[in-house]
Order: sequence, then C-alpha cells, then structure tokens
Amino acid sequence: MSTKTNPGRFFEDFRIGETIRHATPRTVTVGDASLYTALYGARFAVQSSDAFAQKIGYPKSPIDDLLVFHIVFGKTVPDISLNAVANLGYADGRFLKPVYAGDTLSTVSEVIGLKENSNGKTGTVYVRSTGSNQRGETVIAYVRWVMVRKRDESAPPPGDKVPELPKAVEPSALGAACPPIDPAKWDDALAGSPHRFEDYAVGEKIDHVDGMTVEEAEHQIATRLYQNTAKVHFDAFSAKDTRFGKRLIYGGQAISLARALSFNGLGNAFHVAAINGGRHTAPLFAGNTVYAWSEILAAAELPGRADVGALRIRTVATKDKPCADFPLRVGDEPDPAVILDFDYWALVPR
Amino acid sequence: MSTKTNPGRFFEDFRIGETIRHATPRTVTVGDASLYTALYGARFAVQSSDAFAQKIGYPKSPIDDLLVFHIVFGKTVPDISLNAVANLGYADGRFLKPVYAGDTLSTVSEVIGLKENSNGKTGTVYVRSTGSNQRGETVIAYVRWVMVRKRDESAPPPGDKVPELPKAVEPSALGAACPPIDPAKWDDALAGSPHRFEDYAVGEKIDHVDGMTVEEAEHQIATRLYQNTAKVHFDAFSAKDTRFGKRLIYGGQAISLARALSFNGLGNAFHVAAINGGRHTAPLFAGNTVYAWSEILAAAELPGRADVGALRIRTVATKDKPCADFPLRVGDEPDPAVILDFDYWALVPR
Amino acid sequence: MSTKTNPGRFFEDFRIGETIRHATPRTVTVGDASLYTALYGARFAVQSSDAFAQKIGYPKSPIDDLLVFHIVFGKTVPDISLNAVANLGYADGRFLKPVYAGDTLSTVSEVIGLKENSNGKTGTVYVRSTGSNQRGETVIAYVRWVMVRKRDESAPPPGDKVPELPKAVEPSALGAACPPIDPAKWDDALAGSPHRFEDYAVGEKIDHVDGMTVEEAEHQIATRLYQNTAKVHFDAFSAKDTRFGKRLIYGGQAISLARALSFNGLGNAFHVAAINGGRHTAPLFAGNTVYAWSEILAAAELPGRADVGALRIRTVATKDKPCADFPLRVGDEPDPAVILDFDYWALVPR
Repeated sequence: MSTKTNPGRFFEDFRIGETIRHATPRTVTVGDASLYTALYGARFAVQSSDAFAQKIGYPKSPIDDLLVFHIVFGKTVPDISLNAVANLGYADGRFLKPVYAGDTLSTVSEVIGLKENSNGKTGTVYVRSTGSNQRGETVIAYVRWVMVRKRDESAPPPGDKVPELPKAVEPSALGAACPPIDPAKWDDALAGSPHRFEDYAVGEKIDHVDGMTVEEAEHQIATRLYQNTAKVHFDAFSAKDTRFGKRLIYGGQAISLARALSFNGLGNAFHVAAINGGRHTAPLFAGNTVYAWSEILAAAELPGRADVGALRIRTVATKDKPCADFPLRVGDEPDPAVILDFDYWALVPR
Repeated sequence: MSTKTNPGRFFEDFRIGETIRHATPRTVTVGDASLYTALYGARFAVQSSDAFAQKIGYPKSPIDDLLVFHIVFGKTVPDISLNAVANLGYADGRFLKPVYAGDTLSTVSEVIGLKENSNGKTGTVYVRSTGSNQRGETVIAYVRWVMVRKRDESAPPPGDKVPELPKAVEPSALGAACPPIDPAKWDDALAGSPHRFEDYAVGEKIDHVDGMTVEEAEHQIATRLYQNTAKVHFDAFSAKDTRFGKRLIYGGQAISLARALSFNGLGNAFHVAAINGGRHTAPLFAGNTVYAWSEILAAAELPGRADVGALRIRTVATKDKPCADFPLRVGDEPDPAVILDFDYWALVPR
Repeated sequence: MSTKTNPGRFFEDFRIGETIRHATPRTVTVGDASLYTALYGARFAVQSSDAFAQKIGYPKSPIDDLLVFHIVFGKTVPDISLNAVANLGYADGRFLKPVYAGDTLSTVSEVIGLKENSNGKTGTVYVRSTGSNQRGETVIAYVRWVMVRKRDESAPPPGDKVPELPKAVEPSALGAACPPIDPAKWDDALAGSPHRFEDYAVGEKIDHVDGMTVEEAEHQIATRLYQNTAKVHFDAFSAKDTRFGKRLIYGGQAISLARALSFNGLGNAFHVAAINGGRHTAPLFAGNTVYAWSEILAAAELPGRADVGALRIRTVATKDKPCADFPLRVGDEPDPAVILDFDYWALVPR
C-alpha cells in the first residue's frame, strides 16, 4: 500500500491524552440546510424560517443542530473509526454556540479512554470530540466510543482506562447555543404545535405516527454531505462479502430521520440542547421504513431562564414496525425492529 | 393516540369561511434553487442566471414559479389533505409577486366550499390557499379541491356549497409577478430559443421529445424539500397494503417534470403567470419515464404591456409513452398513459 | 416534428471556424457546491472551507474546478452532442480564472475540426469550448471531440481537418486560476495530508483504496445539476431498446468520483489546473462501484511561482474492481473493468 494513503488507526495506535486535529474544515451554507431539509423533511420553524427565528430573538435561522453534529462527527471518521467494528455509544454531548450559514466548522478529538477487549483482537476507544467555528469558539462537544481492531494482536494494550461519563447532561449546562427568546412572540400556529413546555408530562409517550423509507441514494448523499468516509456506507461491491452482504446506513441517518418524524408530537421542541446517550441497536438498510416514538424522561427549568424549559426525551426508532404500541422489548429480549435508542434534551418555549 | 400528534382534519371538521394558518414558514434560498435544478433539469435562463435576469430588468434571478407553488402547497397538507382520498383539481392560480432567494414564505387557506358525496363517507373540500412573503405581500393564490374522508359517517354535512371558479384566469390579471422587462435585451441564443410570443399559433401542438425517468429517491427528496408530509409518498412499508401496493409520487413532481421537459419547444416561455386548472389523471410511480406535449390554447396581449405576451398552454404528461402523436384519448376513453392534464398561462417576450 | 423543438445538429450541419453560443447561462451558488459535496464526497480543504481558503490567500472558497467544467460542458450538449454516438476525448483543457459562488457561467464553442468517417455515416467533430463569467473573462477552455451521426449519408463532408492538439498543457500555461498562496499558512492536518509537492516521485503509483457505488438517482441529479440534457442518461424507457438496455451514466460522473476518491493519497493536490486528456474507455452503469488509482507522470515547477508546483497525474477509474494492483490491461487488451483514463495537472503546495 502506498504510504500516501490513510490506512486509519488501529487500537494500538491510540494513546490516552492524545489530541487529534481532524481534516477538512467545512463552511456550512444555506445549500447544506436545503439538502438537510430535502433528506429528512425537517419542519421545525426556527431552523426553517429566518423571519420566525428573528421574531423570537435569533439573528437568523440557525443551522439544524444535528446537521452540525453530523458534520463535526464526519471529520473524525478517517482518524478514529476507519477500522472500527462498531460505533458503541455517545455521551455528554453539549451544543454550546449556535451555528449559522457561513460559519466554518472543524473538529479536534482527545483520546480519553482505552480498554482492550478480553479476546485481544479489539479494544474500545473513547474520544471527546470538539467542533469549533472560524473564531475558535466551541460549538459542540461530545464523547463517543467505538470498538477498533488491533493491527497486531500481540501488541500490548496502549492504555487501560474507562472514563467516567455522565448518564445525562445537567440541566444547568443546557441552553448555551440558544439565545434568549421571547416566548410571547412564538407563534404556535406557524410553529405547528400548541404544546409548550408545561404541556408535557414526565412519563408521557408519543407515537410519531409517520414512516419514512430510506433509499440507497439518500443515505449516500447525506453521508457524503457530512464528508463521512466510512466505506461500509458506500461500497456495494465490497459489502457483498461482509456479514450483512450490503451497504450499512450511517447511524446518524436514523437519528435525523427520527428527529424529523418527532415533529409530529414535539413540534415546539425546537432545539437539541444536549445528547445524553445513544445506541444503534440494530443495523438499518436501504428499503427499510423508519418509524419512531418518544417518551418524556424528565422536564427541567433552566437556571435564570424564563423563556424556555428543557425536556429530556428518549426517542426510539424502528424499522418496518409502526410504533403505536411503543416497541422496545419482546419478552426479555430487545425488539429486533428497534434500530435506535436516543436520549437527548430539547428546549421548548414556555 | 397521543393528543400531541396531528391526526389531520376529517370532512366534518371543516367550516365554510374558516381560515387556517398553516405551519412551518420557509425561507427559500439558493440551496433550494440548486436542488430544484438538480431534480428536474430546468433550463429557463431567467431562473438560471442572475446576469440574464438583471439584463432584462429583474433585480436578480427569481425563484422558479413552481418551486414557490410546491413550497406554499406543502404547508397546506397537514391541515387540509392528510386524510384525503384524492387531490381532485386546481383553479384560479395566480402568481402575484416575484420571490427571491432570502424571502420567507407562509401559507393561509380559506375554506370556500364543501360538498358531501352521496355515499356519505367522503366529501369535497375547496380551499383558496394564499402564499405570502415576510412583508405580508401575497405572492401566489390558488384554489384546490380534495376528496376527504369523514371520521364519522353519521356526522351531518358541515356545509353545502360548490364555489364558482373561473375556467381560466383573465389575461388582465396576469403579469403581476413579472417586472417590466426589456425584450430588446433578451438574448435568444442564451435563452435557447428563437421563438417569441408572436411565433406561436393558437392550436399549435409541440411534442417536447425528451423523457425523464423518476426514481424513489428523487421524488422523496423533492417532496421533502417542499415539507410536504403526505405519507403516501414516503412510507413503502405501509404502502404495501394500499391499492397500489407502493409509494405514490406527489402530483407536483409530474407538473415540474413536464414543465422542465417543455423547455424543448417553449424555451422562451419563462414565467408561469397563472394556473388555470390541472388534473392528475393517473398515478405516477418510481421507475416510470415521463414525457410531455403541449398545445397552445390561446394567446393574449397584456393590458399596458408591450414587453411580454401570454400563451395559454395545455401541457399533457404521460408515463412510459413518448408523445410524438400527442396522446390524450384511446377511442372514447382517456389514454391510461396520461398522468397530467395541466392548463396554465406563461409569459413570453415579444 | 415541431419546428420549435431542437433536433440537435448532425455532422453535416457543422462548419470549420463556426462559433456557437450555447444556451442557459448559469449562476453558480453555494447550493451547487453543497450538492457537489453530497454527490461525490469531495474533501479538498480549499473548496470546503472559506476560512482555510482565506488563510492561504483566496478571497473565499473557489467553486470546485470539475463542477465548473461540468456546468460549462453541459451547455454544449444541445448544440454539439445531441446526436453523438460517442464522446471520444478531451485535450488542452485549461482553468484560467477562479470561479466563486455568485459568478454566472456561459459557454461558446468554436468548431476547430471535422473528419468524416470512412463508413460515410458519421464524422468526428472537434470543438474548442470556452466558459466565461459575467465579466466576460474566460474561466476555462478545453477541446473535445465527439462522433456525430449524419442526417443524410449522401451529404458531402462539411470539412476535412484534424486539428493538432497538445499531448499535455505546458507547465508555463498552468496556474492562472490559482492566486498566489502562502504555503507556510497551509495547515497539513486540516488539509488531510502531510505530503507536499516535493514528496511525490515521478512514476509513483497510488491506489486510492476506497470505492463508491453509483445509484440512478445520484447520476441523474448530478447530470441535471449541470443542465446536461443528453437523453441517454435520463430515459430508462427508451434505453430498453439501446445496445446497453439501460441508462448510461454521464462520463463526467466517473471523473468527479475518481477525483473525490483520489483525496486518499492526493489530499494536497487541491486544484485541477489543466486537463491534458481523457477517455471514457467503457460505460458506467448504476449499481457499479467505482475505484481509482493514480500515477504521477511528471512534476513541474511553475515559472515565477515558489508557492505551488504541478503534478501531472494519470488517474484510472474502474468499475467493480479494486485497484491494489493498478489495473489497466489484461494481456494485450485493455482491462474491461477500466472506465476512465484521465490525464491532468494538479497544483500542490510546496
């Protein structure tokens, strides 16, 4: 193999405390926002309309939080997960500054944990990735952990530390990416929902009703938009010889589809303020139809803010299984139709 | 079902005279314009080139008229046609102000007619929908009628009125969305056609020659771009149990494809000034190839305008049937290959 | 056939020395740039990030060179190659000015050669096409030659001249579209490669490793974005009766995919300065997976420039065949898996 190409890092190539600056800074534009709408059908008014956003207090429509997440995430793939076996989880994801069209995003990751698996063939790499804008301000930070192959099974473990991670982001840490808004100027009819923060009850479950079928062209276009290069998503020829026999869809596609579907029931939950955790519990393939349901896990006031409250939401997405009865488990086993179990905080006007 | 989700209105939920403000205002951008070009291959010079548009008198390229129509239409779906059996027709569509990148569109509908069907299970709802920009100026107004299911067949008819609708928009009402242009600065070579208003004869038929095959990913991307949520377009899993057994393509996709194909023969018909009527006469599915032909129904000068004239055009689109012999009927029956019969006014430089 | 539609030119319709102004000027926007990223996954930092581009000396990110090429090329199709049997080659392609979002491109072609084939049924047409911006500045010029059918086999040859074309653009003619840059401000980590101009050796071969599968929706969206109307790319119904029995993918799709894949190994080769030649050696179809490898053919300093050097690169793309062993020939025959043999100059910081 040429020394010019990137073979990706193997487990033994990581070191705890190491900082990795990722390639390909990206100026986000209204073109990206249009594609995001076209790929998922997002309908949240703040991200859709400059006029709506300005009326409540934004300078203009912010870029969708998950589009920011996907772009920041995509940059980490060539350095972190090119030789990954599985993307295991997310934690402590915080949105810290709004991103607007014209901002340039780049990503740095710090290795915060390493744990070799008992089989000696793989290990788990924990990284905290930080996305910054062109002024050097952090716009998002999150932790993810992936299982990565070793190049050489006889190599000694490069480290042995499992970081302590919060089960959920504290409410006091929420809201940095949301300017003060004027809830009196929030037009429920234009927003598409009469339900404000106070109208949601902890324990309430919502079936988001609608389904969305994913095509190969769609997830490829999405994943390339994020400059995510993981080959499992794009190469049908090589995929024939994998355990699935076909291309695997980027997990973020399920997150964005579930979030877009959740508009039907959570129309005023306009801003993803934090990602508490998330697991891709089963693979998603082209031809599958994604459905979703949510449960309100908690509701929190934000210190010093009377304009918005935070709902902690668990959104579960399925494939080829409508969610009227909130599928999650079948007896003692996870329901194999469940593809995503996602735990996040969303802001809702009061 | 959660009370938080939108079940859509049923026939008995509408009232004559009622006004419905629809959700999700939308700032239209150059990103949307790029996607529109990429989805249909539109080639009209005014909408493609700022330089061309400015030379003849526009401040810059306007957003394609049909993109405006689709966005304004899309907003009405959750309130008007979520429980629709069929989209029956359009009338009295008028383009009243140009829309430019950066403008924000929102939609209001007035219920102008209700007519229960004799079976007592469904009724026809007539709405006049009005799209406005961020300054509150009306940019488009049109009437459509849809057949909507009753929730409760025993409910009394909510009204009984069929509105009178014009067969065609009057020429005196055309042109409001087209600034005065300088036809001497219209470059036929750049526009792609030497044929001006005077070169078209009433009764002339034009086969637009080319065909365009539609893929599932394409119509889904288009329909989501318009934030149109009608589930029949997106959910292959549920569609298996419908009468078609598969996803149905949004009717507007056929309109935009036919309009883009019509460039070959109508290259100078740069502005859709009015929609007189339109019917989706058969369903369109992914894998079908769309062809189109047009007939010039009328030609009209516009009061006080020497720059442009109006052609009333009937454009017929087919699936999997080239249009060299202008397919429309087979004996006494409609030709089953015809999917769209569309009647509109277009402006052409003189 | 209506006299209003464009039947395309046949071989006997061309004249040596004739100039053809093509239709549909096009304002290129950030929306087009987003789609380009989404369609190919390009990751070159200069085109991806305004901040990166500004730091080294550009006013902002330029539009990708190949996006410019495809848009300029697309305009020539209705006049040059609507009745083409095959696109035979390219030569003497030079990028002469950077193109930025907001610029409007239009194309003029001069017929520089005509050669009837011995069968009397077809002939080769050589055109030099020139793309200009809204200020009339030439941004790109290139020669291509296509085999075009005669309408009337008994028509006399319209000319008989094969132009002399350079095998490669001279290094002294390179760099006009690249402003002076400051290589000290070029951040290798952000760019994704530590390899500068001096690190590449003539004769070096690089397998670009990754593969990308092409879907029908993707190549149709791309080709329409370029307003390229060649019907072989879009009409599955008519294609059933062709020799391939299906839609044929625009050759430029292979060029852009190969270029995007080549980032893995040529990450700092940020600007396509010239196209020396290119042949589409076999057809590409939806469902195929594209791979690529490159060889460094030459390295040249640019007169008066210490900031960048030029690498002459041969990039070979294949379908359904990974390129670890640099496929090109099988015995004495061309390898049927090879779809593209592309020879270009790229600029690399020193």
